[in-house]
Amino acid sequence: METIRIGFLGCGNIGCGVYRLLQTHGEAMRANEGVAFDIGAILVRDVAKKRSWAIPASLLTDRAEDVLDNPDIAIVMEFMGGEQPAASYMIRALKAGKSIVTANKMALATHWDEIVSAARESGAGLYYEASVCGAIPIIRAINDSLQANRVTSLMGIINGTTNYILSRMSSEGADYARVLADAQRLGLAEPDPTADVEGYDAAYKLSILSTLAFHRHVPVDCVYREGITGISAIDVACGKEFGLTLKLLAVAKEENGVIQARVHPTFVPDHHPLASVSDAFNAVYVNGDACGEMMFYGRGAGDMPTASALVSDLIKAAKAKRHELPAVHSAAERMADDWTCVHFVRMMAKDEPGVLSKVAGQFADEGVSIASMVQKGRCNSDGRVQLVFLTHRASERSIRSALARIDGDLASELHIIRVENE
Amino acid sequence: METIRIGFLGCGNIGCGVYRLLQTHGEAMRANEGVAFDIGAILVRDVAKKRSWAIPASLLTDRAEDVLDNPDIAIVMEFMGGEQPAASYMIRALKAGKSIVTANKMALATHWDEIVSAARESGAGLYYEASVCGAIPIIRAINDSLQANRVTSLMGIINGTTNYILSRMSSEGADYARVLADAQRLGLAEPDPTADVEGYDAAYKLSILSTLAFHRHVPVDCVYREGITGISAIDVACGKEFGLTLKLLAVAKEENGVIQARVHPTFVPDHHPLASVSDAFNAVYVNGDACGEMMFYGRGAGDMPTASALVSDLIKAAKAKRHELPAVHSAAERMADDWTCVHFVRMMAKDEPGVLSKVAGQFADEGVSIASMVQKGRCNSDGRVQLVFLTHRASERSIRSALARIDGDLASELHIIRVENE
Repeated sequence: METIRIGFLGCGNIGCGVYRLLQTHGEAMRANEGVAFDIGAILVRDVAKKRSWAIPASLLTDRAEDVLDNPDIAIVMEFMGGEQPAASYMIRALKAGKSIVTANKMALATHWDEIVSAARESGAGLYYEASVCGAIPIIRAINDSLQANRVTSLMGIINGTTNYILSRMSSEGADYARVLADAQRLGLAEPDPTADVEGYDAAYKLSILSTLAFHRHVPVDCVYREGITGISAIDVACGKEFGLTLKLLAVAKEENGVIQARVHPTFVPDHHPLASVSDAFNAVYVNGDACGEMMFYGRGAGDMPTASALVSDLIKAAKAKRHELPAVHSAAERMADDWTCVHFVRMMAKDEPGVLSKVAGQFADEGVSIASMVQKGRCNSDGRVQLVFLTHRASERSIRSALARIDGDLASELHIIRVENE
Repeated sequence: METIRIGFLGCGNIGCGVYRLLQTHGEAMRANEGVAFDIGAILVRDVAKKRSWAIPASLLTDRAEDVLDNPDIAIVMEFMGGEQPAASYMIRALKAGKSIVTANKMALATHWDEIVSAARESGAGLYYEASVCGAIPIIRAINDSLQANRVTSLMGIINGTTNYILSRMSSEGADYARVLADAQRLGLAEPDPTADVEGYDAAYKLSILSTLAFHRHVPVDCVYREGITGISAIDVACGKEFGLTLKLLAVAKEENGVIQARVHPTFVPDHHPLASVSDAFNAVYVNGDACGEMMFYGRGAGDMPTASALVSDLIKAAKAKRHELPAVHSAAERMADDWTCVHFVRMMAKDEPGVLSKVAGQFADEGVSIASMVQKGRCNSDGRVQLVFLTHRASERSIRSALARIDGDLASELHIIRVENE
């Protein structure tokens, strides 16, 4: 059996997880998969830093060329994170004919065309299962199992941090700020949580997933993005009364050649398979015209789940006689800037006769029909009361037009949250 | 682009589904996957029979050799079902160097070694994703995504008919016989439902899944099997009170080299991801030492979901430079004949003082400790009342010993249902 020499770019917790798996599962991989690996060099920022697993100092280097220009290294595993220098290192390795195994959704999503083109030009492999949803084989599912389907929609809980926050807000009735602070204390949210709570992380992942699912390039900047920072405990509580659970969903749909790709807080019915995906778990719910509904559930982050996907990719890279590579697609010509769904609309309205009729009138004028309405709580000191509407399916544009027409004196603090019930 | 000629063995609903997908998605497959197919011959029992999709009469034949001995046919798709002649046809095709794509769990599970050996000898491909859980890519997940894991357990709802029956028994409080009759009327259960309700179908599938997951051959006759025919509405109702949902689970575990493989009615906690898998849906919940918990959910049967998996396999077979084949494993040396779990025990006990103490005493003597007990309903005309116990984790052998020691005069109609809560 040939031993394949590999290099690491980065060696934080995920890199240590990969190193550990190669040690502990190396014998089983030789027996079951017929592959053996040997680490040539590991690029780190600080060779002296203490790591979560004992890595021999002789492997560590702070010179990128020891990995990228080492002719003995056939496969480079990248887990530096961040856009640069990760993207340019990957491109450099691919151009030199080294296959890449990466967990880096940001570098991949922001430099998709360049990275894919570099791989296609040299014929080197590009493996990125770990870049979306950790251990969950959602990339494989789309590429290797849904080829005989037109994927019509894909909805995912693909960011563990926000799912943890929303799950706790839901189970405890707690406020966003308090749960976020807790998550930061527990290491489940970054000190600067922007990438997670504003939906950037999910948007990178959705760009990759929708590009693969629809065979059109869906660049990150074409993904509509709205985070969870505006969500309050009252949204979660009102949703519950309507039988709805709040999630940060990444939604991608294709209809008549028009692609929607959007990340935003979304209500799903309590009985929907995505509703019960709680804490830091991830899940992707896919609809295909032949396969019907499917869901893939598991640990979307964490050292060992991510390492599990990385080493699985490494084995595939090592065994491939010819690497399967994504196509270089032209960018999707037609991205939707409007979509139709049920909307949850919350507002503070003046507590006096006739207000409901006027508000409902504005909806009616835009052709939006109301499915239900509840008044929440008591009148506040401004003489206003919380009104919550659930519409029938309507375009977001018509909802926004209706809300724009509502006089601020009549109702203010207008919020909308989309509802996906399919 | 080369066009690959394929043959069908069988052309019932699933075969028609495959034919339909090749027609409707052929252009997309050429564009996205770079493969094109052409059907050479379709073996059917009756060429004159009306089918669910218009198949040109010129393709139909009732002579197996038109497919099996046709040198132009490179890939044979088998969906005849049943053990024979399917198994021998597949072996014959593989020996002739033709790759096989099959949905036939029965032929595969009962002739695993012969079929795998035939493929390994000729180097032809063997693709069988559709044989377990329809559209759900659980075979790919185990083979292609969990290579860097030791799979510790696998629990699946892998028979849609029984899940439909148990879901309705649970939602309606209905009796087994009535729901079965309904399912038969709706075409969701066969006129002779034995293969489904007695767990044979699930046992075939579990044999395949556990063989792949544990890298040891787990023959069907080593799978412990118990169907749902003994389940009554009262079991379902009592489970609910304990926060448990009843499923026919296929369970496989590996611990210290000992493999458990068993199919039986099983309670799972209501909050377990498997509990919410209802109706005819399938799901497999897998635990790996690196990836943690994962679940794969979707349509486990039906023409188009099964055709989706078959055509996906067909594309893989066509594109493979070298076919990945299962190893020929020696049979698992150590199959468990006992296992430890929480047990739900129901019995009709004499309604008089001291009975509970005597029954509990028998459990205690076997080292089985009781977690909770409820008395259900009123005393019947025989002066007996329903008692339901939930034990702490205990070996099944000790539970059975305890029950064997209970005097029939004291308590009768003893039932046990295992509880999996991990």
